[in-house]
Amino acid sequence: MTTKSQTKVACCQFDPKVGKKQENINRSIELIKEASKNGAQLVVLPELCNSGYVFNSKKEAFDLSEPVVSEKGETIKAWEACAKENDVYIAAGINERDGEILYNSAVLIGPNGLIGSYRKVHLWDDEKNFFVPGESGVPVFDTPIGKVALLICYDVWFPEIFRMCSLNGAEIVAVCTNWVPLPDYRQGDTPVVVHICMASAHTNGVFIVAANRVGVERERRFLGNSLIIRPTGAIESGPASFDKEEIITATLNLEEVESARKLSKQNHILGDRREEVYSLDESKILN
Amino acid sequence: MTTKSQTKVACCQFDPKVGKKQENINRSIELIKEASKNGAQLVVLPELCNSGYVFNSKKEAFDLSEPVVSEKGETIKAWEACAKENDVYIAAGINERDGEILYNSAVLIGPNGLIGSYRKVHLWDDEKNFFVPGESGVPVFDTPIGKVALLICYDVWFPEIFRMCSLNGAEIVAVCTNWVPLPDYRQGDTPVVVHICMASAHTNGVFIVAANRVGVERERRFLGNSLIIRPTGAIESGPASFDKEEIITATLNLEEVESARKLSKQNHILGDRREEVYSLDESKILN
Repeated sequence: MTTKSQTKVACCQFDPKVGKKQENINRSIELIKEASKNGAQLVVLPELCNSGYVFNSKKEAFDLSEPVVSEKGETIKAWEACAKENDVYIAAGINERDGEILYNSAVLIGPNGLIGSYRKVHLWDDEKNFFVPGESGVPVFDTPIGKVALLICYDVWFPEIFRMCSLNGAEIVAVCTNWVPLPDYRQGDTPVVVHICMASAHTNGVFIVAANRVGVERERRFLGNSLIIRPTGAIESGPASFDKEEIITATLNLEEVESARKLSKQNHILGDRREEVYSLDESKILN
Repeated sequence: MTTKSQTKVACCQFDPKVGKKQENINRSIELIKEASKNGAQLVVLPELCNSGYVFNSKKEAFDLSEPVVSEKGETIKAWEACAKENDVYIAAGINERDGEILYNSAVLIGPNGLIGSYRKVHLWDDEKNFFVPGESGVPVFDTPIGKVALLICYDVWFPEIFRMCSLNGAEIVAVCTNWVPLPDYRQGDTPVVVHICMASAHTNGVFIVAANRVGVERERRFLGNSLIIRPTGAIESGPASFDKEEIITATLNLEEVESARKLSKQNHILGDRREEVYSLDESKILN
């Protein structure tokens, strides 16, 4: 496919429609094909991009879910076929059913099929009414296009989980998201999540490739602002618009992961961690 | 002194001169008085602001150090007198000697004298030649002007230590710093450390009050950009200039700490942490 040190990635920012699963799958495949035609080897799609996000009821959420691990549902089958046909990797958010339980999940699919999945650890707001939070850690998938971890939306608010990615070897963190504007956000401002992603890329020395959705769903507005960040913390592509469907791309030089982590001749961003201090019992409040 | 919910703070960005300890102490006291005259209740000064930063030798670093804990050196005595006289709290970086060992430390001093100190946990570059890193956690000092933690410079690169502050009850994190421009920094850009501080304030729900130095010392240029950030992540004051001495101020509403941490009706930035997931053995790299 390519040398491992250069990986071309794309974020497909689009507007899935809640309840219109087949339509969403079709739209995602159109976008993957377009990104792939332009050279993308890894295409990142938003959170819950097959089902839509704002569910009216547990039943609606359940009806729009499908199995991922035990057997493969229609979305996984469609993305697998697309990945194979276009020789591309896909990271995408999916409404996962496991027995009677729903997870807000992301999958990584390659030309040879499903590679693995991740279940969102930190649930946002009404998601807590529909989904069970992931109970396992953050897998890192070692692929020909780089070592890839998956995170979802509100996860990025927790530096602990970015550390799990980088300590476990991730070079690229693909973020499938449905970020919403926080109450004090004004359109045109840089959203706080952009600063969080810049900080997390830099303090972990990883690429962040974050695909958000746009649009308004049952009066819930999404944030757009998909972006691709280098391990230095510099934004390489984006932030994309607040409200338009678009594809942003970048070519990642994976060797930058290690060089960016060396901050000075005596400093390495992961090597300088002081685990023995962090694991101390919580200090007492003094005075 | 005041109601606890409103605290006026100041960062004194100045240019200490290496080796000129008495001159640096005098200058720091001028600035504390000026800030206090304008209403500041907590005045934050840069890292190693009594000794200067770029030492030529271990001997020079040692000669510029003084005891803090066992007995009080001249700098502590001078700051104590100033805090008492002006009814003000001072957070400041100091070159600390403990027997034969040097620490890059910060102290918190109130109108009644020294409250406590913190020894820098993450040492930057040549500091490793002069100082021993702090081995204990991050104390939080419960004072009439708020619950205050101290961090120093490169510490802010490590989200783990901000978490220790917030989990231990800090409302205000005073950062005494000598940030330098990273190699890819161009004057006029927003330095990556500003994004880190915005992200850390927001993801912990704390005020950050960071005083950097300016100037060039033995060919080492410092970054300025002192700043005060709200628990939402929004910058309240600054960033100050790249190269000028100046005082920036802000009035902190401490009640914002708790309100900012409630991100939605079902989300609290600290309550949503998943310690049981973070403490899992490192996941395996799959595939």
